Amino acid sequence: MSAAKPAAAKAALVSPLAPSRFPDLPAIAGVKSATGRAGLYKHARPDLALFALTPETRAAGVFTTNAVGSAPTDWCKLALKGAGAARGLLVNAGCANSFTGAAGDAAAKRTAQAAGAVIGASGESILLASTGVIGVVLDDAKVAAALPEMTLAPVDWPAAARAIMTTDTFPKGAGATAKIDGVKVSISGIAKGSGMIAPDMATMLAFVFTDAAISASALKAVLKEETDASFNAITVDGDRSTNDCVLLFATAAAKHAPVKSVADPRLADFRKALKKVLADLAIQIVRDGEGATKLVAVKVKGAKSDASAKIIARTISESPLVKTAIAGEDANWGRIVMAIGRADQPVVREKIAVKFGPHWAARNGAVSKTYDEGAMSAYMKRSELEITIDVGVGDGEAVMHTCDLTKRYIEINGDYRS
Amino acid sequence: MSAAKPAAAKAALVSPLAPSRFPDLPAIAGVKSATGRAGLYKHARPDLALFALTPETRAAGVFTTNAVGSAPTDWCKLALKGAGAARGLLVNAGCANSFTGAAGDAAAKRTAQAAGAVIGASGESILLASTGVIGVVLDDAKVAAALPEMTLAPVDWPAAARAIMTTDTFPKGAGATAKIDGVKVSISGIAKGSGMIAPDMATMLAFVFTDAAISASALKAVLKEETDASFNAITVDGDRSTNDCVLLFATAAAKHAPVKSVADPRLADFRKALKKVLADLAIQIVRDGEGATKLVAVKVKGAKSDASAKIIARTISESPLVKTAIAGEDANWGRIVMAIGRADQPVVREKIAVKFGPHWAARNGAVSKTYDEGAMSAYMKRSELEITIDVGVGDGEAVMHTCDLTKRYIEINGDYRS
Repeated sequence: MSAAKPAAAKAALVSPLAPSRFPDLPAIAGVKSATGRAGLYKHARPDLALFALTPETRAAGVFTTNAVGSAPTDWCKLALKGAGAARGLLVNAGCANSFTGAAGDAAAKRTAQAAGAVIGASGESILLASTGVIGVVLDDAKVAAALPEMTLAPVDWPAAARAIMTTDTFPKGAGATAKIDGVKVSISGIAKGSGMIAPDMATMLAFVFTDAAISASALKAVLKEETDASFNAITVDGDRSTNDCVLLFATAAAKHAPVKSVADPRLADFRKALKKVLADLAIQIVRDGEGATKLVAVKVKGAKSDASAKIIARTISESPLVKTAIAGEDANWGRIVMAIGRADQPVVREKIAVKFGPHWAARNGAVSKTYDEGAMSAYMKRSELEITIDVGVGDGEAVMHTCDLTKRYIEINGDYRS
Repeated sequence: MSAAKPAAAKAALVSPLAPSRFPDLPAIAGVKSATGRAGLYKHARPDLALFALTPETRAAGVFTTNAVGSAPTDWCKLALKGAGAARGLLVNAGCANSFTGAAGDAAAKRTAQAAGAVIGASGESILLASTGVIGVVLDDAKVAAALPEMTLAPVDWPAAARAIMTTDTFPKGAGATAKIDGVKVSISGIAKGSGMIAPDMATMLAFVFTDAAISASALKAVLKEETDASFNAITVDGDRSTNDCVLLFATAAAKHAPVKSVADPRLADFRKALKKVLADLAIQIVRDGEGATKLVAVKVKGAKSDASAKIIARTISESPLVKTAIAGEDANWGRIVMAIGRADQPVVREKIAVKFGPHWAARNGAVSKTYDEGAMSAYMKRSELEITIDVGVGDGEAVMHTCDLTKRYIEINGDYRS
């Protein structure tokens, strides 16, 4: 339906919500990396990122709950079942290796072995992530051929972030430092994701590295909790991919006494820093939402529970009618009320309130007496918006980040596969 | 974002999926009607439809489960709590009278009383339905002023169907006949709905009339069941309005012995005819889906249960990525597999199969060996498509009707309120 645009024209576009530049990220002792090109795309671009990790490294992951899954996520889940050790991570763009059956599993295994050979470790100690077209078996021979050409060196974060992009319009990175036992530790992470595009079944991937010494079980608990508050609090189109994963690696190069339990109070500052990094990466993904022109924080309070608030926030954030209204710079609180109602959560209709930034649209179950169309219209022209909703039941709260739904999303996703 | 188009240009567009003409509907003894103009729209158009029913009429309704609801749906639920008698139905377009608190309830009551006065019945015996902008109290004085000008006469179905349209691009009607006890009975229905449009919180409304003699309780049971298979099996954008309702009226003018129970075997033929009418109206709503260019039947089989199949079918039918791919005439089975996976239902990945019309895209958990891009592309150019999915678990089946997601949807819904 939409006129096909040349790929070059597409690639030239950068999201209007993109940060001005890639941030300076702290170096993480114990991590080296390299990027390369297996040729999984027709055009010349890096499509491989390899990370080598010291033997002391412990890892944890959070994976998509999509029931179809993929060969690399299956591989990682298995690899992390044991002690949570990892010697490397190989990421490819251009092929998701999902819905590929036994052939896909075998291809994944061979790429892990090839990466292990470069690093000098077993294939089983290499984690894998793939992003790109679904239903096509990864051409592992191309990957194996490219790997020996890749020279491990101190991590070039922007280069690594670029190598894992699919339809992303900018590379995504975030970093922070924290103290454990008075010892400075660093956290650096990269992510990719921007919705999905034909023919790619693009995915949200994030890889975070720290030099802290934290046990695998504590890493896993911290990652699970902080992912809920970051990557699980964003939505572009409600579609959840087969390959999503967040991996956290701790190299234990920092000189503090190791943290063995998630209950260890020495973790507090690290968790704060990790939360910041994950939230930063998550919001960058929304900023790169396909066709997005507005970044929107949907804050729900007064719900029966935090879980209930999250369901309401997500229903609003994924409503096509709310998202198109925001694209049209229309403070259409009626659609928000509709979305609240269809979330099937407890609400007190007579107490529902909706606020755009500081401007009340509805209060006590009806249009606000102070509703000011002029002020509202001016507010809606901003590129970053905050919508606060009170549903009048209890103390439950949640925040979801989303973007608007524009014609560009249709253009990107409605083009023929070619 | 989208350039605002003059209302006239919009009104001129008729869905490419519209039927060639309004069908001839059987007259229903015991029903009269009139249309009129309260002036709830700025432009000159009928916005009121009044139906008068004989005292023998019994009625049943199915209402939106949206937690916010509306004054008219609240009114109907209360009115139908007793014996299920109804002497009339008043429908207005241009104002949903939803999220309007006590003032909205009072306005609804006054319109019912005004309609009752015209018919010669109590206000409590008049059912109400409203569709249009949300959060604005119905201007009942305008309605009351218009009602006495409206002359009840044999039902003009196309005129009634036009009076209840909001963003619909064509009036919707369907009819059938059946036999009860060898006596011919007739069914005629009208509906409106096409997604939602700024500033209107448009709704799906359907009103079906029969001269059969069926008790209120039997009507209710039949309507509930047949609604699940028709109106609850369509989706345009997943947004569920505050005002949706389906009302079924039986005037008992036909000369068969009354049907008192849903278990009465004499109902069989009537149910078949009612199913046909409801399905026809439901699919007309999808044909008028905002911006729709393709009508798609999503058939899921092999699920754990029919309910599970319905969840999977709905997830596929509402996936923005699936819907944009269909707009692009792209048989993107990868996105369908992704949507299957995110439905969170039991599936056997290795047995998943996806077929577009007669063409296999995927079988046994991987791309089909007989996949033929040329045949597939040709099929995808059709305006009516069928996608069949097998998830390889059990015997559960469901069908959902949906439409594609085009730039026109964004245009319609992203325009400023004005």
